Amino acid sequence: MSSASDLLERARSGNTRSIARLLTIVENDEPDAAEVMRELYPLTGTARVVGVTGPPGGGKSTLVSRLAGAYRDRGDRVAVVAIDPSSPFTGGAILGDRIRMRERFLDQGLFIRSMASRGHSGGVARATMRVVHILDALGVGTVLVETVGVGQEEVEVVRVADTVCLVTVPGLGDDIQAIKAGVLEIADVLVVNKADRPGADEAVRDLAMMQSLGTRGGSGRQRGLEREGSQWRAPILRTSAFENTGIAELMAAIARHGEWARESGEQDRRRRDAARAEVETLLREALVKQVTDRIGPAAVDAAIARVAARELDPYAAVEGLLGA
Amino acid sequence: MSSASDLLERARSGNTRSIARLLTIVENDEPDAAEVMRELYPLTGTARVVGVTGPPGGGKSTLVSRLAGAYRDRGDRVAVVAIDPSSPFTGGAILGDRIRMRERFLDQGLFIRSMASRGHSGGVARATMRVVHILDALGVGTVLVETVGVGQEEVEVVRVADTVCLVTVPGLGDDIQAIKAGVLEIADVLVVNKADRPGADEAVRDLAMMQSLGTRGGSGRQRGLEREGSQWRAPILRTSAFENTGIAELMAAIARHGEWARESGEQDRRRRDAARAEVETLLREALVKQVTDRIGPAAVDAAIARVAARELDPYAAVEGLLGA
Repeated sequence: MSSASDLLERARSGNTRSIARLLTIVENDEPDAAEVMRELYPLTGTARVVGVTGPPGGGKSTLVSRLAGAYRDRGDRVAVVAIDPSSPFTGGAILGDRIRMRERFLDQGLFIRSMASRGHSGGVARATMRVVHILDALGVGTVLVETVGVGQEEVEVVRVADTVCLVTVPGLGDDIQAIKAGVLEIADVLVVNKADRPGADEAVRDLAMMQSLGTRGGSGRQRGLEREGSQWRAPILRTSAFENTGIAELMAAIARHGEWARESGEQDRRRRDAARAEVETLLREALVKQVTDRIGPAAVDAAIARVAARELDPYAAVEGLLGA
Repeated sequence: MSSASDLLERARSGNTRSIARLLTIVENDEPDAAEVMRELYPLTGTARVVGVTGPPGGGKSTLVSRLAGAYRDRGDRVAVVAIDPSSPFTGGAILGDRIRMRERFLDQGLFIRSMASRGHSGGVARATMRVVHILDALGVGTVLVETVGVGQEEVEVVRVADTVCLVTVPGLGDDIQAIKAGVLEIADVLVVNKADRPGADEAVRDLAMMQSLGTRGGSGRQRGLEREGSQWRAPILRTSAFENTGIAELMAAIARHGEWARESGEQDRRRRDAARAEVETLLREALVKQVTDRIGPAAVDAAIARVAARELDPYAAVEGLLGA
């Protein structure tokens, strides 16, 4: 029995250290990752995956903790996957009070995993998806994926989710505009957190305005319009994670979206997109490996040096490598 | 004569519409992109490329305008490539006073190009690099690349630059911490803009502290430490783009960094990294095209559908496709 299948067996029987080790293997794409994914992939597809994203300072961590607790209270096995904005460079030390352990088992029903936002071959989105697959296969009922920021990377990360929640706060002012592009259109549920603060009404209004602008102004290829036909319009909710209000309503909205996604075919579409991304990435990697094994890394390096020196254009370099 | 070489000839003679069209071709990776890049790539490598990034609300656009004007006053041909945070979905309409035309020729010596931050095959970083190559080959002396945000995507975009400026503002408070990870370590020049506002001293202090933490705490594989050996420590400057102060000092710092980069070999290293990224991407694309041409898109789609349905794991799917 290989060490990977040994590990798998222990993880399946609930050994938390083995689960953590499995996650590290797939997160870092270690040599055993393929064997682990082969074994576990067929068991995936039953977890509810909820993505939570938004600008820094929105109280997402507290909100996610509240949600995790509430799902757990209903008897779910819950996992939180937090994409940590700390880089290896700073070691997370500057994050002040947000220092977290890399993983923690609070109790039998709740598993927390922090992932670095960088340093993953193939990107953090792919690493997140694999970690979610493992948790799904091991019987976690609800996976909450938390990511900080509103850029393209965050959009890619939360695409792993069946339902995406975008969390904003009152008082962002005009900055709400610059940071929402791209994220608003993948959000299934819009949340104004810290809604006990002044400016909550304006924040709700701003979101509603941006939503209606987006729906009217988008091109036909955008997701927003596809969805208009199948009639899901992201609801705008108010929560206060600190005061623990609005959590039940948020869970209800997530459940409604999940139901709609299953019935409308949206869930199948997202899962097909995810499968496509995974297959295409693996295919590219396998092909590049075949070629570099054949022609050797030295030949590739030599071609790159000539491109850097402007002696060769990149297209000619690739033709040369493939012809070799 | 093909339409591409025709266009190239007109662009070289300074026809601005032809230049704009060339940029669109490479930005969107249109069929003629390879021919254009083949022709122009050998002519690249002379422009000074300056990246400007930082969180929203930092006054980067005004700062970049000031810099562009100052370089032009010195007789440089200047281009600004602005990665626009507006998505196709919103059409940029919500960006209020930052509405821009897609491109604009203000006068003979200044060219402005706005690029969407999404929708580029291969990513916005690659599209930016190609646009910069074209401008470089056509004789632009200074290319300013402006991007909004502090995520991984922005890090990738500004890597195209010979010198990277990170622009912050007073008053970010604790939020300065969450957004700097990953960006701080690629910054060659740190700028506190709006330095006439209260809190500028604190902002400078925060940056200095994060810089020293990073240098001490980073792992040996991080760029910060590599650089420590070759003795470049990013200076921290104060500017007020609105009051037009500190611009000459910023230009001097950029020039000093450029000189250091050329002498220390850092510039060569960055250009080799850029060449590697471009060659590897083209290689992957060529290989995938070879395979999909051979086995047909229908076979790929069928495999993806089986993966989505959990009948097949992604690794087995790729093996099947490559064995076909």
